[in-house]
Amino acid sequence: MTAVTKQLASFIVDSRWRDLPGPARHEATRATLNWLGCALGGCREEPVERLWEALREFAGPPQATLPGRGARTDMLTAASVNAISANVFDFDDTHLATVIHPTAVVASALLALAEHRRISGSEFLHALALGIESACRIGNAVGIAHYEKGGYITSTCGIFGAAAASGKALGLDTQRMNWALGIAATSASGLRMMLGSMAKCYNLANAARSGLSAALLAAQGFTSSERALEAPRGFLNVLTEGADSTVVTRGLGEQWEILALAYKPYPCGVVIHPVIDACLDMRAQHAIDAVAVARVEVHVNPLAIKLCGNPAPRDSLESKLSIAHSVAVALLDGAAGVAQYLDTRAVDATAAALRAKVVLTSDAAIDTDQARVRINLANGTTHEMFVEHARGSIDRPMSDAELEAKFSGLATAELAPQQTERLISLCWSLADLPDAGAIARASVAAP
Amino acid sequence: MTAVTKQLASFIVDSRWRDLPGPARHEATRATLNWLGCALGGCREEPVERLWEALREFAGPPQATLPGRGARTDMLTAASVNAISANVFDFDDTHLATVIHPTAVVASALLALAEHRRISGSEFLHALALGIESACRIGNAVGIAHYEKGGYITSTCGIFGAAAASGKALGLDTQRMNWALGIAATSASGLRMMLGSMAKCYNLANAARSGLSAALLAAQGFTSSERALEAPRGFLNVLTEGADSTVVTRGLGEQWEILALAYKPYPCGVVIHPVIDACLDMRAQHAIDAVAVARVEVHVNPLAIKLCGNPAPRDSLESKLSIAHSVAVALLDGAAGVAQYLDTRAVDATAAALRAKVVLTSDAAIDTDQARVRINLANGTTHEMFVEHARGSIDRPMSDAELEAKFSGLATAELAPQQTERLISLCWSLADLPDAGAIARASVAAP
Repeated sequence: MTAVTKQLASFIVDSRWRDLPGPARHEATRATLNWLGCALGGCREEPVERLWEALREFAGPPQATLPGRGARTDMLTAASVNAISANVFDFDDTHLATVIHPTAVVASALLALAEHRRISGSEFLHALALGIESACRIGNAVGIAHYEKGGYITSTCGIFGAAAASGKALGLDTQRMNWALGIAATSASGLRMMLGSMAKCYNLANAARSGLSAALLAAQGFTSSERALEAPRGFLNVLTEGADSTVVTRGLGEQWEILALAYKPYPCGVVIHPVIDACLDMRAQHAIDAVAVARVEVHVNPLAIKLCGNPAPRDSLESKLSIAHSVAVALLDGAAGVAQYLDTRAVDATAAALRAKVVLTSDAAIDTDQARVRINLANGTTHEMFVEHARGSIDRPMSDAELEAKFSGLATAELAPQQTERLISLCWSLADLPDAGAIARASVAAP
Repeated sequence: MTAVTKQLASFIVDSRWRDLPGPARHEATRATLNWLGCALGGCREEPVERLWEALREFAGPPQATLPGRGARTDMLTAASVNAISANVFDFDDTHLATVIHPTAVVASALLALAEHRRISGSEFLHALALGIESACRIGNAVGIAHYEKGGYITSTCGIFGAAAASGKALGLDTQRMNWALGIAATSASGLRMMLGSMAKCYNLANAARSGLSAALLAAQGFTSSERALEAPRGFLNVLTEGADSTVVTRGLGEQWEILALAYKPYPCGVVIHPVIDACLDMRAQHAIDAVAVARVEVHVNPLAIKLCGNPAPRDSLESKLSIAHSVAVALLDGAAGVAQYLDTRAVDATAAALRAKVVLTSDAAIDTDQARVRINLANGTTHEMFVEHARGSIDRPMSDAELEAKFSGLATAELAPQQTERLISLCWSLADLPDAGAIARASVAAP
């Protein structure tokens, strides 16, 4: 049997920053920017407040920052809190093949560590890429059966990413990295059925904290089984019958999973995204005033209507699964960000009036990342657009500029516009920063 | 489908101290005494040292005591450290039907909480019994298949015990207790393959800490799925195909799992125990001097020889799986405690010389909790004893006096004899103490 755990540990330990292809380095920076934006946007949400209220009494010294909130706490607690902030809107990145949301787990652990045990920006990005690589490759080996059975793959596999990234930042040798992966394996938890409750994003908090703890323990010589992934009763076999453990290491160093990350441009059901693209683009191109809209005809894949056909959502959660609501707010505001899906917006009369003018048509010839939208104005004018691939889909990744715009929208409640701009610049320059923790400290409103 | 999670939550919340049968109350006291002894005995072992070194830098205010060590730390960290101390010798209690070691997880969380949020001794014992009940009943439903597949049932199910006990001590209502159980379900982790490495007892640290955290989060209104155990993709079905969730609640309040706890009198392989019983009893009865022993004939079940037939162990771990070593030290010292299984003792020449005089005979007619031992002295005298049931077996539970003796042996390295005696008395009086935390504070050497 191949010593997969040890091979992965060796790869992580031996990897050098210059081994990473340029696109992988850039993607690590993009993932960081997107993560930080999500953490800023989500930092006042109820699950974050409740976690912090429940645990702050037991927290240690101020070692790491909570972006947006500004409080500093011990780095393990910071890893937990930030992981929830970054995931609470379901707006963080996705490794589509496994549906893992890796960066919320990995970056939350790693940036907290980076603040306390100073590492450079390139060390941060390097460790982040290796962590994402580890989580997603283990996710590839576990496969979708685990998720279907009821496991929550973002935490069960994400924990390895936090352990690997933290272990790299701590400079573990191969033996200790191997133990860190083993300790992570025996700390992995998470049930998918928690979706719809606060405990869903708590899974990420557990993974971030426990993955970081695994690396810290291994650094102190705390031992574990050394074949934690591939052994007959190891992690992979406990999670999935007949998992092929060699998937974890196949093509390691040649093929980078970080290049397969997708970012969501809008914090709502992914099948709605091409519809929003069409509405925003037509609104901008034709300077459409929502007041002048008489009727919006939307042709989408049948799945989109099945999942998001709700014409009259009553709260935030329902509005995120409503094509009609998304059309209305996109035409009203020229945006579809967090502000467009608040509870207050879901019951807003203007939005509701426009929603009533949206007509959905099911068309199996249209793909799930496509949409045809026709806007009929009261004066008889008609605008129509067909979206071939939605923004943020694998065929049309979000551009750097789009990621910046998303970041600005998310940061707006916490930071002044100028500060947001400076923070975006700081993130883009991360590879050259002597101290990665600078981006955490810059994520707090100036006094 | 029966709402098992909610029913269990209701039972825990509604239970009153006076509902517990007398034997269950007394067993909770015995379990506490045994747990505290194990925690004292194990508190300087290497896994404890390394965990503490790795995590103390991130720990919060001094809220709870580490028995033996004396340091005080935040209650979540104390729960982790104490769980390892209590389990590191494999000397803690066992729920034989599930092989769960419940008290190391439950009491470690609960006593830390009790110190910080003062609860009475009877509240402590009540919550402990309910926690053990929850863990073992969920273990009964999960069944042995989970363990055989590779899960470590002490942590995967033990976490519910920590959550239930902590939730009871915090006075959660049924809704919040239900959430606590759900948060525990999605935080449950542990692989059996970690046996043989330090990560084995880290599983208990995770369960104690995460179970306590689950209750603290629920107390703050942090929500979870409310059918975490019984749902089609709930905890039980993810761990075991076709688990019968009603096992969790069948006979609840009538049948108490705490009455099925077993305590080990000796920190070695359980099949050796009847042999040690015979040696200790004959040594005492006949004032046998080990120097005078010419030969020891031991008749045991074939399994005992298969597992523990090693005639010449080289270290602590091997000596714990050696009948010959156990015979030698029992006759030399009149004891078979932690001191008899140290690395130094395994290579001790006197012990080795006596080990060489032990002859093992396999006999399928002898049960695994039985042994026949014949001691031949150099002067021609022969003593023989047949042990019908080993001490600590289900048919011959350890007496209170035997538990006290075990406690004294474990506490000896940390506490003066007088202090040990006072602490034992304090434990027996726990049900009447106004502050359960008193036993934690009394577990530290007087300055």
